[in-house]
Amino acid sequence: MRDFSGGHEWLSINTATIRKQSGAEVPLDRIIDQCAERGIRAISPWRDQVAGVGLDKVAAQLKALDIRLSGYCRGGFYPAADAAGLKTALDDNYRAIDEAKTLDAPCLVLVVGSLPGALQGKAAYTDIGRARGEVRDGIAASLEYARKVGMPLAIEPLHPMQAAERACINTLEQALDLCDELDAARSGMLGVALDIYHVWWDPKLQQQIERAGHERLLAYHVCDWLTPTRDLLNDRGMMGDGVVELKKIRGWVEAAGYAGFSEVEIFSTQDWWQRSGDETLDVCIERHRSAV
Amino acid sequence: MRDFSGGHEWLSINTATIRKQSGAEVPLDRIIDQCAERGIRAISPWRDQVAGVGLDKVAAQLKALDIRLSGYCRGGFYPAADAAGLKTALDDNYRAIDEAKTLDAPCLVLVVGSLPGALQGKAAYTDIGRARGEVRDGIAASLEYARKVGMPLAIEPLHPMQAAERACINTLEQALDLCDELDAARSGMLGVALDIYHVWWDPKLQQQIERAGHERLLAYHVCDWLTPTRDLLNDRGMMGDGVVELKKIRGWVEAAGYAGFSEVEIFSTQDWWQRSGDETLDVCIERHRSAV
Repeated sequence: MRDFSGGHEWLSINTATIRKQSGAEVPLDRIIDQCAERGIRAISPWRDQVAGVGLDKVAAQLKALDIRLSGYCRGGFYPAADAAGLKTALDDNYRAIDEAKTLDAPCLVLVVGSLPGALQGKAAYTDIGRARGEVRDGIAASLEYARKVGMPLAIEPLHPMQAAERACINTLEQALDLCDELDAARSGMLGVALDIYHVWWDPKLQQQIERAGHERLLAYHVCDWLTPTRDLLNDRGMMGDGVVELKKIRGWVEAAGYAGFSEVEIFSTQDWWQRSGDETLDVCIERHRSAV
Repeated sequence: MRDFSGGHEWLSINTATIRKQSGAEVPLDRIIDQCAERGIRAISPWRDQVAGVGLDKVAAQLKALDIRLSGYCRGGFYPAADAAGLKTALDDNYRAIDEAKTLDAPCLVLVVGSLPGALQGKAAYTDIGRARGEVRDGIAASLEYARKVGMPLAIEPLHPMQAAERACINTLEQALDLCDELDAARSGMLGVALDIYHVWWDPKLQQQIERAGHERLLAYHVCDWLTPTRDLLNDRGMMGDGVVELKKIRGWVEAAGYAGFSEVEIFSTQDWWQRSGDETLDVCIERHRSAV
């Protein structure tokens, strides 16, 4: 297992972590500069943040500063109430794949979606099995396009508490089953983004990480699980402030062959998004050394 | 599959559902009377509610009104920071088994516990594997006692969002693996309490319900999953108000041989606990007919 205590060479910042600073939205170009100032070598930006600055401008800034991506957030949200909605979702995923290629991302992260409309408070249907079928078909179509472009797709299993609104793929085992179905050859073009926040509780976690192996482990996200957790989406903790055994899990991931970045992704309405981005980044660097 | 539309013969009320009425705590003897007034044939009370009235008094009231139990809430919370804590937990579970016997419950429901201290905001340790081992040992010891008394134990897998504080058994598969380990003979003395709130999202739910079979399905709890869910513990929905496919899941459970009560268990700080208990019970009866 790599020793992170001496530096932050393998730290990546998911830009959602500092998208709000002192309570206000901050544009991506400023966030990238803040990372560059600290010698952070990689980020994972969100599509809306990239669009806010401009795709080509972001690509040029990253190149000039020698900052790479650890992933691109995000494709997915495949299920829809009707055929037109399914097609719209597919088209949007093709665009996301193209953007990821322009930014030279190692993978496009997929938050696959679930019951259409549930995120807005009213599900168009409640058959989660149907949603899972639409996700399967959507990933299959995206994968065909992604293979042509040369952009790996990373399915992110989301915590079961987000199963209604955001993702109907909720365990690593389920994600890997789908990978095996759609990419039996383990081509490297389909795998998972493993975010410890979503999977830390899983009694089969170690077993399924071993099963995944390096061909399927395309991204690794860290934060921490707080007790109590006050919100189902935006109360993630800084590494070391919660109950997740981060070093143990990274040990499993590295034993399976993962050798990439540890990407910090913290959504935190009440705490970290209220602090200055400079403070948050400094603490990320410190905790990357001590707690990850 | 049984037809519930014509009556509420198979409705049970978990008394937590109306423990608060119009915002105030209501004693169990009053709750039992409210159920009896409506011809509700079964309840599942909590230990603290029983203690508040007195065990023998509750037993006599239930007998006089011909109300039976669908379960007794609850044993469990095995993990502890030290040996003394482990022993205290075991002793408490022996008492819970005795109480369940006095009340002629069909099973004692086990919320098994997890990281000791996490519920109070500070985990004494974070090794969830250790907690799972302590749970295993605790259930094994409880089962030995339960066999003598003749009181089946029902492990309740809890939603992964409660994995840190309340239960480190988080899927039906995990609960059944433990049942098979400790009760390979499927004696009927160890099984599960299946609460749809905790398991509805699980892609292996149907498969594991089939695996459980009638020897392991000791209790069945219903409510609904709301979108959005505003609290990790106390924002459960009334059946029909959320996204859970209740009839489909009951179909699976009954196909596996379950023929007992559908027990309504709703924790709802902001909604149902603010209403009158009479209104809540009437809606439970109506939804039991239409949505369960």
